[in-house]
Amino acid sequence: MSGLSYVAVDWGTSSFRLWLMSASGKVLGERRSDEGMTAAARTGFAAVLQSHLDALGAAADLPVVICGMAGARQGWVEAGYIDTPAHLTDILNGAVVVSGQAREIRILPGIAQRDAAAPDVMRGEETQLLGALGLNAPGEALVCMPGTHSKWVKVRGGTVERFATFMTGELFSAVARDTILSHAVAGAEEAVDGDAFRAAVAAAFAAPALSANLLFRVRSRQLLFGGSAQAARETISGTLIGVELAAGLAEREQGAPVTLIASGRLQRLYQMALEALSIPLDAVDAEEAVRRGLAGAAATIWKK
Amino acid sequence: MSGLSYVAVDWGTSSFRLWLMSASGKVLGERRSDEGMTAAARTGFAAVLQSHLDALGAAADLPVVICGMAGARQGWVEAGYIDTPAHLTDILNGAVVVSGQAREIRILPGIAQRDAAAPDVMRGEETQLLGALGLNAPGEALVCMPGTHSKWVKVRGGTVERFATFMTGELFSAVARDTILSHAVAGAEEAVDGDAFRAAVAAAFAAPALSANLLFRVRSRQLLFGGSAQAARETISGTLIGVELAAGLAEREQGAPVTLIASGRLQRLYQMALEALSIPLDAVDAEEAVRRGLAGAAATIWKK
Repeated sequence: MSGLSYVAVDWGTSSFRLWLMSASGKVLGERRSDEGMTAAARTGFAAVLQSHLDALGAAADLPVVICGMAGARQGWVEAGYIDTPAHLTDILNGAVVVSGQAREIRILPGIAQRDAAAPDVMRGEETQLLGALGLNAPGEALVCMPGTHSKWVKVRGGTVERFATFMTGELFSAVARDTILSHAVAGAEEAVDGDAFRAAVAAAFAAPALSANLLFRVRSRQLLFGGSAQAARETISGTLIGVELAAGLAEREQGAPVTLIASGRLQRLYQMALEALSIPLDAVDAEEAVRRGLAGAAATIWKK
Repeated sequence: MSGLSYVAVDWGTSSFRLWLMSASGKVLGERRSDEGMTAAARTGFAAVLQSHLDALGAAADLPVVICGMAGARQGWVEAGYIDTPAHLTDILNGAVVVSGQAREIRILPGIAQRDAAAPDVMRGEETQLLGALGLNAPGEALVCMPGTHSKWVKVRGGTVERFATFMTGELFSAVARDTILSHAVAGAEEAVDGDAFRAAVAAAFAAPALSANLLFRVRSRQLLFGGSAQAARETISGTLIGVELAAGLAEREQGAPVTLIASGRLQRLYQMALEALSIPLDAVDAEEAVRRGLAGAAATIWKK
């Protein structure tokens, strides 16, 4: 192998991100595309990966470590799940080899909560946790990872004890696109209406049972009082996030901060929401976290 | 006019129902189609109505009373709203005449709650309320009218004091059709899995903030433990209805029954849900209610 350089890949359902990494953890090159699991399942995982490696001129013997949906049953090679309570080290030990490839390729497993009363799965977020918290982080953390399927995770001394997935992001898309509220948000600009968002977070946090009513009020308000598409969109977003926070924050120890692992727009929204509720937070960039997690995995797998 | 016979029409967003009624309130003929407001706005309201009257051979001078979305701004003739607190008599007084027609045609107004903190609107349900409760029903009623947009209404002595719309039915469609859960429910049979439904109602009623997590568990459960598409569908349905009940029943006086105005599958589901929570209920058939409401309107408008 070319020293200890390696390739790190975060392979989601609908997105593909690849970094060419130096031994010291520096990003030497980067590729992003929408060839996530869904697309790659059609065109071939090996071909997608090789095309991006070729584009970067990556050496033929560089090893590759992958996290995310490439390890799902419908992915490239099934990498299974580590069961809760799951020490983050177990993820590294559970890495699966993709056989029949010229270079060494490993896919990290996900984590499963095989609790019949609260079954849950994650795939990709375990690597973000590893990167954000490290292998043996002391003490307890309540981690929020917003997304299409937001995760709230309780970690103690490097062990994932419990977690819960909230399909908040996907609900937002479905409500804004496929219900009567699509008319209310039509033409909304990209900028965030902070006032509408914060008011919606507070209302939903205080009365989560009202969620389906708070959503309908977006339409009633426009009909009776007018209002911008932007305010409508942020009210839908704030309502759904407020309900999620009502459940997620119930797990928080009094006064303890929430570790928020997020990037971009979601980072801004969740930070605004937590601040609106006066909840202290430690912000960690999600992309940096997954890269650090993959770096940790590469170091453990190939430096031994 | 031909005695006191008349035509009653319930004209919703996506459905059209017409009854030829005798003076004594007997149904003499009936028509149903999917020419709701959305379709009729394209083909013409007058033409749609006339085609159904022709099919029944209705006399040219029979008067027509209409409730529902035909009175919306995007409908036939805007019939406006009566504001809360709204006595049900006010609906009758607010009926709007469709001008330029050979026969007499009236459209009933909706009800608006012009409360900036809880804006809401109904159109069609006010006529069901009139039919179910009568003009001067003594005492207080908490009414649940399930649907695409469920209504919960507090009525006292014939006056609609407050109401709230929950977009439960539309959320169900969007979640089951346009999210990752569409895979979980694919191929579900029409029969109801009562156990899965009741368990989901109870779980969501107890912890409404968890709703987006309870929904995602449908997928996790199938992935880790298997389970039928039917159970998945009823769990989604029960979760969304359970959250709605947590909010709607908060308005209930201790021990008082809920007046459930519903038909068909929704009637069965909401009755099962209320019984699972040991809530007493008075069931009223929704179609009979709207017909009785339109009959009351016709009697007031044309018998004077």
